[in-house]
Amino acid sequence: MNEQQKMALATLENLQRIFTTPESPDSTLSKIDQEITNDLLGFLRDNIVATTERLTDIEKQFSDPAIPEQPVFVSQQTDFLMEKVVAQSVHTASPRFIGHMTSALPYFMLPLSRIMIALNQNLVKTETAKSFTPLERQVLGMLHHLIYQYDDAFYSHSMHASRRALGAFCSGGTIANITALWVARNEAFPADGDFAGVGKEGIHRALAHYGYRDVAILVSRLGHYSLGKAADVLGIGRNSIVQIDTDAANRIDITQTREVAARLQQDGVKLLALVGIAGTTETGSVDPLQELAAIADEFDVHFHVDAAWGGPTLLSEQHRALLSGIEQADSVTLDAHKQLYVPVGAGMVIFKEPTALAAIEHHARYIIRPGSRDLGATTLEGSRPGMALLVHSSLQILGRSGYALLIDQGIEKARSLATMIDRDPDFELMTAPELNILTYRYVPAEVQGMLDDVEHQQTLKINDILNQIAERMQVLQREAGHSFVSRTQVQIARYGQQSLIVLRVVLANPLTTVDILAEILAEQKTIAAEAGVQKLLKALEA
Amino acid sequence: MNEQQKMALATLENLQRIFTTPESPDSTLSKIDQEITNDLLGFLRDNIVATTERLTDIEKQFSDPAIPEQPVFVSQQTDFLMEKVVAQSVHTASPRFIGHMTSALPYFMLPLSRIMIALNQNLVKTETAKSFTPLERQVLGMLHHLIYQYDDAFYSHSMHASRRALGAFCSGGTIANITALWVARNEAFPADGDFAGVGKEGIHRALAHYGYRDVAILVSRLGHYSLGKAADVLGIGRNSIVQIDTDAANRIDITQTREVAARLQQDGVKLLALVGIAGTTETGSVDPLQELAAIADEFDVHFHVDAAWGGPTLLSEQHRALLSGIEQADSVTLDAHKQLYVPVGAGMVIFKEPTALAAIEHHARYIIRPGSRDLGATTLEGSRPGMALLVHSSLQILGRSGYALLIDQGIEKARSLATMIDRDPDFELMTAPELNILTYRYVPAEVQGMLDDVEHQQTLKINDILNQIAERMQVLQREAGHSFVSRTQVQIARYGQQSLIVLRVVLANPLTTVDILAEILAEQKTIAAEAGVQKLLKALEA
Repeated sequence: MNEQQKMALATLENLQRIFTTPESPDSTLSKIDQEITNDLLGFLRDNIVATTERLTDIEKQFSDPAIPEQPVFVSQQTDFLMEKVVAQSVHTASPRFIGHMTSALPYFMLPLSRIMIALNQNLVKTETAKSFTPLERQVLGMLHHLIYQYDDAFYSHSMHASRRALGAFCSGGTIANITALWVARNEAFPADGDFAGVGKEGIHRALAHYGYRDVAILVSRLGHYSLGKAADVLGIGRNSIVQIDTDAANRIDITQTREVAARLQQDGVKLLALVGIAGTTETGSVDPLQELAAIADEFDVHFHVDAAWGGPTLLSEQHRALLSGIEQADSVTLDAHKQLYVPVGAGMVIFKEPTALAAIEHHARYIIRPGSRDLGATTLEGSRPGMALLVHSSLQILGRSGYALLIDQGIEKARSLATMIDRDPDFELMTAPELNILTYRYVPAEVQGMLDDVEHQQTLKINDILNQIAERMQVLQREAGHSFVSRTQVQIARYGQQSLIVLRVVLANPLTTVDILAEILAEQKTIAAEAGVQKLLKALEA
Repeated sequence: MNEQQKMALATLENLQRIFTTPESPDSTLSKIDQEITNDLLGFLRDNIVATTERLTDIEKQFSDPAIPEQPVFVSQQTDFLMEKVVAQSVHTASPRFIGHMTSALPYFMLPLSRIMIALNQNLVKTETAKSFTPLERQVLGMLHHLIYQYDDAFYSHSMHASRRALGAFCSGGTIANITALWVARNEAFPADGDFAGVGKEGIHRALAHYGYRDVAILVSRLGHYSLGKAADVLGIGRNSIVQIDTDAANRIDITQTREVAARLQQDGVKLLALVGIAGTTETGSVDPLQELAAIADEFDVHFHVDAAWGGPTLLSEQHRALLSGIEQADSVTLDAHKQLYVPVGAGMVIFKEPTALAAIEHHARYIIRPGSRDLGATTLEGSRPGMALLVHSSLQILGRSGYALLIDQGIEKARSLATMIDRDPDFELMTAPELNILTYRYVPAEVQGMLDDVEHQQTLKINDILNQIAERMQVLQREAGHSFVSRTQVQIARYGQQSLIVLRVVLANPLTTVDILAEILAEQKTIAAEAGVQKLLKALEA
């Protein structure tokens, strides 16, 4: 054996070890593993360094494009991860991180995720996911039941049948929305005579065959950005998303919806879908789903409800009526990694009709053969992990009553915060919480008085300055790292069409208390003072 | 406080505990966690019960559509998972599971996955993924470098720039292929004069504006089924996938490719993409990428390479020449959960040009704002987990030399198996391994003699019976649970156009030995005998 062969053999033996021998319990990585197991919140608190390090500086640590020739030790990579990745992560589980839809996770998610990773099932087919296939089908059935409440006979007939699917599990709400609109598009232009259907022949031939000049999807202007992306990817074009105005409560304008639908239909435009939102991303508002369902029925159009955020509200007896009408939807998007408290990467689209997904069914020679139970026959994604295990477990371990409490608490906290903001002379509540999301902005008392008095031109100017303040405050608070709210742009009836930058709060983390909310408002006042907001406002006196 | 309030408070306290208190180390779930940590392979071996339990029986355990009203204990759910889910999972890590593209994982994936889950970053935006954003961009850069080997200046200019992207990370190869073809479609029909581009206006207007009657994507008939799905979802229709014949080595027929491209172009059809395959799913063959690149250049069409399987072959000095020409691709699909040995849910599409993804760029008011580094601006998915951490770590810990050994070993083993099959009088090698995939079938010696001698009609009949035998053997071996090969249908030059069912072996698991391969062949002979193959063959004598 020469030197080179000896080295190859040594590497080979190392490789075998990597696949067969556990990390030593004394290794750095094992200790971190144990630390997370013993005290997740402590680990996050102690190791995520809330610094103002700039992204451009962090990027320097991740700039080498070369894959190293020789292996680095696990301990060395672990040190790197702790110093450069963990330390500069975002503490999404923090009770003070109330700006986005990511929350703390229940502890049991850690060991359950280990089981999922260890099994490494691929849910595209039963040959790599035997029990996980019925498990995922049950989860889809449970969410279907939550929405539609059909009888047992329906579920025993449809849940596990090979040519039926109560929904499609996916990585998140975007894929769920795309899947729903894909089905809607294909159902709108099915095979007919010598036309083989839009799925086989494309949009251009579908329009020609059915004699339409265009297509449209109707949604309020608060629709999630994934709908525009869906229209792009589906080949119908972003312009086919027709945005309907919202009312003072940020809900879709029903009168306008009906008018626009009628006009488009008269104009030779095929309506592909009417989309209702159950919890808009920006304001948490819920569209009047029953009235939308009636319009969808009237115009014979697919009714999709994007309940990625608000769907789990159905688990609360107290608040489920807010979503009344959702049971008339043809399809519903839900995100388990939002208010079902599962780690990122778990979305679902549920279909009322168990045969709806046939519109996008596909097969291959080596898997997802016709007649199989393979889930991959009706999903946009191919290979997928067994995240359904986490959703299944969470639904069992929290139960309906547990989720109800979480939902109720979040809404209650949002109302408390709204009251605090309303009572504080230096803040202005911009959108009141219907669910657990609200927006507001910093407006010093003296300026609030001005806003009420001055004429239109002056209001526009003041709002421009308030926009700058809101943006600056959000960035400064984020960079300080103690707490986090997000920002977005909304239109508010009392200010007309002007685009207003607002602070946005999402209250889903059960560890967030009312005291913390008060502290966050106080911190914002301090930031405003330090950031020279007064100087900005001086401009107004001129 | 009344009874109901007391109960609510108790549930609330329980809930807080779930989010703040670790599982007790003595709990069932903690013990399983520890067991997996200490001995993953032992856990899988001992707890996955290889039984012949039918899927229809397993389904009965997953039939309740109701979400339980009251929480169940974690221990109770754990018992359920162990008995019903784990026990009936597929042992994808087994060295005897050589039928699909899922393999054993390196041990360090377990604790690293725990870090990833614990941090629960959402990679759609930097506000929920500060360090993970540059980390993922670096991973994309490393794979870009592996393919294109541009100089350092290129990467330091492009890797972290806000309007540039070297690729898109996603859940798997299907989304990667869709993303590549989405970009190709949008680049083929850009904004022009009063036409706002296909992304905004749709396929029908794009064709009308540019004066084409249709579009086409060219790929060999061994193209992955996700391409047909992509054509459906992209609104161009499955029929726009034009399948080119393959040669005796299962590679795309270059002459036919050029002829078809020319004919389509003359016929008013816009060519959207030419797809080369670097490792077909069914036979592991690699298309002549250099010749395809030349055709793509000649016809000015997007050249996409689906290297979901074969991409990591580039890490092997010995075999990387097999993929020669891939550096001329406009886009390349890679799956990290295949030959980069990462858990399921990690794919990538890499683009040669850092501005290519601008063709599908999108924004929102509250995240992925123009000018940000947010990864979500150029991904098909929205919320996504931090799987890039696992790819980054794996590339470091295994290094190029480690991966090279894994690749080389797999190809060597495939060749050994091919030799065994060739030498065995009762098996017929159907497609020889170019990478680490091969197909074969059971053909008793006496029938092999007949196949050589008889006339065409008789061959068809014999092959029909051999098809039944292959299918039955594959099912019986899978159900017996000791080992697993998959099956598919291929066409083989010497048998003309007849569709032949074959056994398919994928050799990526480093724990699979040549001895195990010999045992699997021996088991198949036993199965053949027990399954009454002789009786089936008797039919031939008549």
